[in-house]
Amino acid sequence: MLNFVNDYSEGACPEVLQRLVETNREQLPGYGKDRYTGSAEEKIARACGRPDAQVFFISGGTQTNQIVISTMLKQYEGVVAASTGHVNVHEAGAIEASDHKVLTIPQVDGKLPAPSLREYLETFWADANHEQMVFPGMVYISWPTEYGTLYSKAELTELSDVCHEYRIPLYIDGARMGYGLVAPGADVTLEDIADLADVFYIGGTKVGALCGEAVVFPQANAPEYFQTMMKRRGGLLAKGRLLGVQFDALFTDGLYTRISHQAIDTAEIIRQALRSKGYELYNASPTNQTFVVLENSKMEELRHQVNFDFWERRDANHTVIRFATSWATKTEDAQALAALL
Amino acid sequence: MLNFVNDYSEGACPEVLQRLVETNREQLPGYGKDRYTGSAEEKIARACGRPDAQVFFISGGTQTNQIVISTMLKQYEGVVAASTGHVNVHEAGAIEASDHKVLTIPQVDGKLPAPSLREYLETFWADANHEQMVFPGMVYISWPTEYGTLYSKAELTELSDVCHEYRIPLYIDGARMGYGLVAPGADVTLEDIADLADVFYIGGTKVGALCGEAVVFPQANAPEYFQTMMKRRGGLLAKGRLLGVQFDALFTDGLYTRISHQAIDTAEIIRQALRSKGYELYNASPTNQTFVVLENSKMEELRHQVNFDFWERRDANHTVIRFATSWATKTEDAQALAALL
Amino acid sequence: MLNFVNDYSEGACPEVLQRLVETNREQLPGYGKDRYTGSAEEKIARACGRPDAQVFFISGGTQTNQIVISTMLKQYEGVVAASTGHVNVHEAGAIEASDHKVLTIPQVDGKLPAPSLREYLETFWADANHEQMVFPGMVYISWPTEYGTLYSKAELTELSDVCHEYRIPLYIDGARMGYGLVAPGADVTLEDIADLADVFYIGGTKVGALCGEAVVFPQANAPEYFQTMMKRRGGLLAKGRLLGVQFDALFTDGLYTRISHQAIDTAEIIRQALRSKGYELYNASPTNQTFVVLENSKMEELRHQVNFDFWERRDANHTVIRFATSWATKTEDAQALAALL
Amino acid sequence: MLNFVNDYSEGACPEVLQRLVETNREQLPGYGKDRYTGSAEEKIARACGRPDAQVFFISGGTQTNQIVISTMLKQYEGVVAASTGHVNVHEAGAIEASDHKVLTIPQVDGKLPAPSLREYLETFWADANHEQMVFPGMVYISWPTEYGTLYSKAELTELSDVCHEYRIPLYIDGARMGYGLVAPGADVTLEDIADLADVFYIGGTKVGALCGEAVVFPQANAPEYFQTMMKRRGGLLAKGRLLGVQFDALFTDGLYTRISHQAIDTAEIIRQALRSKGYELYNASPTNQTFVVLENSKMEELRHQVNFDFWERRDANHTVIRFATSWATKTEDAQALAALL
Repeated sequence: MLNFVNDYSEGACPEVLQRLVETNREQLPGYGKDRYTGSAEEKIARACGRPDAQVFFISGGTQTNQIVISTMLKQYEGVVAASTGHVNVHEAGAIEASDHKVLTIPQVDGKLPAPSLREYLETFWADANHEQMVFPGMVYISWPTEYGTLYSKAELTELSDVCHEYRIPLYIDGARMGYGLVAPGADVTLEDIADLADVFYIGGTKVGALCGEAVVFPQANAPEYFQTMMKRRGGLLAKGRLLGVQFDALFTDGLYTRISHQAIDTAEIIRQALRSKGYELYNASPTNQTFVVLENSKMEELRHQVNFDFWERRDANHTVIRFATSWATKTEDAQALAALL
Repeated sequence: MLNFVNDYSEGACPEVLQRLVETNREQLPGYGKDRYTGSAEEKIARACGRPDAQVFFISGGTQTNQIVISTMLKQYEGVVAASTGHVNVHEAGAIEASDHKVLTIPQVDGKLPAPSLREYLETFWADANHEQMVFPGMVYISWPTEYGTLYSKAELTELSDVCHEYRIPLYIDGARMGYGLVAPGADVTLEDIADLADVFYIGGTKVGALCGEAVVFPQANAPEYFQTMMKRRGGLLAKGRLLGVQFDALFTDGLYTRISHQAIDTAEIIRQALRSKGYELYNASPTNQTFVVLENSKMEELRHQVNFDFWERRDANHTVIRFATSWATKTEDAQALAALL
Repeated sequence: MLNFVNDYSEGACPEVLQRLVETNREQLPGYGKDRYTGSAEEKIARACGRPDAQVFFISGGTQTNQIVISTMLKQYEGVVAASTGHVNVHEAGAIEASDHKVLTIPQVDGKLPAPSLREYLETFWADANHEQMVFPGMVYISWPTEYGTLYSKAELTELSDVCHEYRIPLYIDGARMGYGLVAPGADVTLEDIADLADVFYIGGTKVGALCGEAVVFPQANAPEYFQTMMKRRGGLLAKGRLLGVQFDALFTDGLYTRISHQAIDTAEIIRQALRSKGYELYNASPTNQTFVVLENSKMEELRHQVNFDFWERRDANHTVIRFATSWATKTEDAQALAALL
Repeated sequence: MLNFVNDYSEGACPEVLQRLVETNREQLPGYGKDRYTGSAEEKIARACGRPDAQVFFISGGTQTNQIVISTMLKQYEGVVAASTGHVNVHEAGAIEASDHKVLTIPQVDGKLPAPSLREYLETFWADANHEQMVFPGMVYISWPTEYGTLYSKAELTELSDVCHEYRIPLYIDGARMGYGLVAPGADVTLEDIADLADVFYIGGTKVGALCGEAVVFPQANAPEYFQTMMKRRGGLLAKGRLLGVQFDALFTDGLYTRISHQAIDTAEIIRQALRSKGYELYNASPTNQTFVVLENSKMEELRHQVNFDFWERRDANHTVIRFATSWATKTEDAQALAALL
């Protein structure tokens, strides 16, 4: 059975696991005060071109989003997101559980268009009753998006500009950031992200780690006592080393981006096969997620040999499905899938 | 430098790490639906003598406490705990962050005495104004306690009886459960815990795992959609396997209790040395934590060769300090400490 | 200056105020246990055709919505509302502050269409990932809506049927309920509301009272310890009599509906003038709110003599404004406005 | 039947009610933007000797405490209170429902002793683990206390000094403030309160109003968008005039303190009778609450003619009860009670 159902089917990439094994019996301080965590923080800050950046490690994406958003918003503020934003749809209400509203704007190609954002903010502040409404206090986007698409550097710059004009932070969810950084045609670097966002996270769970996301405050602008607030939300591991060692490995010798290439290369094999065989791609995702419109009969046929993800019904006879690759996807598996299409 | 500062200074015990390595590249479903998690659930349920028990895995203790307590309490209820209970003191307000009050009762030897609990509950229900107060809706105890002490089976039974008389669940925080189960003089088994508690967790972080706690609902009495509520609090890992594989290993061939013995054996070496040299032990902890009253001069002298934990000032010249051991403590290190005392 | 800016510009209707004066020095128990509150509860229950209904009084609408919704939802549930629902737009995030998401469905004429609701619920339960999403746990509608429109009895019945098919309660916000009950063409009675809704509130603030809303659980289905949860949200007045006396008066001899007629009669004077003079009505509201499209020049001219509410920009030259009437609106004022149009 | 059961048994004092009647049909803006509310704000600010103070009106005490505390604390902070503080005991968990812990210090005579507070704060900041605990972020006291006692000016000054040394605000709950200001021996003025507290409220519900408390930020230090946060917690009345008109009356020509005298005068009649007949007073309350130790037989005898409040069991044969007076207590009723003792 070929497996393209998601990008978290395997454990850690070998180099990361190796470091966990090598450091396992070292006696280290808890709660992220160990030297590996310190080293990981430093390497990430440098990779972002921001040696003074503050970096924190949290186990998973939902928890990261909950903690970052709820600690940066004021009580009377909500977070603005595209209607398809992960925080709006697939986090079981974690943002609301932290007392904040997700304010939605219709998505275009999985993205939040800067002009829509500007109009939303203008309208809000012009509304005579805005003091009885939820204030837009932050903008959340994912890069790559939940649909695999990427904001260009120009698009990110425009969003960032609108945010800063309205004095609200731009937050980038980088659960799959590695796959965006090395995607064909991507014109955004980690340094660009650090320039344009006020806070972002670099995803580990989907890019080489057993678990863990690295939150970066590029201007050393973390809310005071951020770790206490992590603890209060259950997001501070006693053995912080588990995250520190992994990210230290991922940011040694460019491992993070190096392993990301495999996801893109295998996705491209699949996309090329789809294109050459005349399938309709659902969108132009250049990253590790490929969405394609299949006839239901073809979909049923594939099911016997391939695990993939159902995305949405297109019409009575067609369905959109997703093939996800990752750092762990084998080239021969992608080729095997290509042959089946 | 000898290290007795806490019980989470190392990574995972070798057998656990080995299984993570062996299963690393297997493609497994996410969110705890993999076969190792299933196997771990089953083994734990059987170890509890409750084959139908429901078992869930959560990354850390604070998060576990927050999720279990907030999902089992009704809105108008709080959780009753000893004044020294971890949820009351050292979790940065995680229970209150989930909207519930910790109702405290003075501790005795780190424990919540059943007669005090009964009196508290009687007084509450007799109060004509109790509908304007926070209802006691659950009892939280830790076993072993934060002070290393253990409730006897008779004490646990009495607490359990009071809880059930008042129809509120008894919840046992077992962050260090292994060390209680094998402590000298302990008369409580895992099956007893499962008989007497309505929900409890078996700690992994401090007993052999990289991270993770196993929540057990012995009467299959988990709140409906418990996993959704875990997700909502950020407590559901995409790679649930990380926890499942570890607990599967810990509950294979009695590994969990086997490794716990080392913590007790080394703690006993230290305690015997303390007793034979005439030190005043702060309490009668039979588990992996040893509290001793030291003259400040002796404490300062030790500091150069040993890491330990400051506990509290006793008087101008004396301090209570803690030596913690764990599954990872080496016998020779305990002996070396004994020699230094 | 003529005032049509909103429906809460005056104090209480004279009969209500009179009763407050008459009972002022009586010594009465607090927290709603006084005889006037008891009498009001009974009269309302009877007016609903549900002598066993439970009735509670809360100071204002936002607080009522927050308390009712948060006490009836399970933790993992959100409330479904039309995109224009008051709880979604103009309550400063009060629902989210109680930890719940507002799940929105596009409005049609200010209403939540039953077919859209059905589709939403079907889609949710069919989604393989629904356990990672917010469950729809209640439906919120307002009657009359924020746009002055009314669901017909057939529409309400259809919504109620969908809710009950999916086993979630239907909650009706009746901030302006009196104005709906007596509107021309309305085919819904208070008894119908009590038959079709699982919980609703009868608005006092906008219909004759100084403050106060009456929450009705027609099947005596209030959550246990509802008053404790009211207190916990700050919604339980020590002098509950303030609300009890007012609602006792409002539900004596049909005062509530009797005073509602004046709002409708005056609104009809305005609407007739608008229609006869060829203005474009924004919608077909039959209640106390009248929305009309004005040329900006006309709007500016009116401003000098009339207070009204800006609603939204239609285009560069036209604006939608609202004229609100109430039980307190004088017939001559409505006629004066009609003459100005 | 004589009634001394609490201090909220009647409606409003006549002058207040009269103003509600006189202004009833005036058309006024909503949400506290009317001229009476403005006038009340100004008069209160002046009465506090702080013409620039910000003043807000909220319906009741629990809601006021919830809103003030939750908007002034940072997320990782809790509020310090005496163990008997109203927020800790009789508000159904309203503070925790807003996500914050009440950090308690043992009371002495109903008060929070400044030296205990200082020790608490010193200990907290000296604790090496304080970042995993709830930070003390505000101090809550009530003046008069729940036990009718009063902090002297020296005591308040000492508390204020400790707070400011640790840079946390001092909040005074003045539910019964009028009765403290005119109590025999009280050496604290409203101007002193405004000098020493960072925020406080002047109680209306128990001192002459139908409902309502006036929150004062003496240094114009209200959190930004305080009204939006009031709304978000359900604490913003559409007809804000209801509170504004009442407080405008209460702060015209010294009405607030004038009516407070009657509560004290009648309480003194009762206390004098108790003392002269040899009863044991439970404490030295000089305000409107009188606590006395009665033999149970005497208590039972009184029950037939007097409503009073059970406070606590003293021993098998004695009970502490409370007689409460208010602005509405008639002199002849106090004399009648005195005669019965």
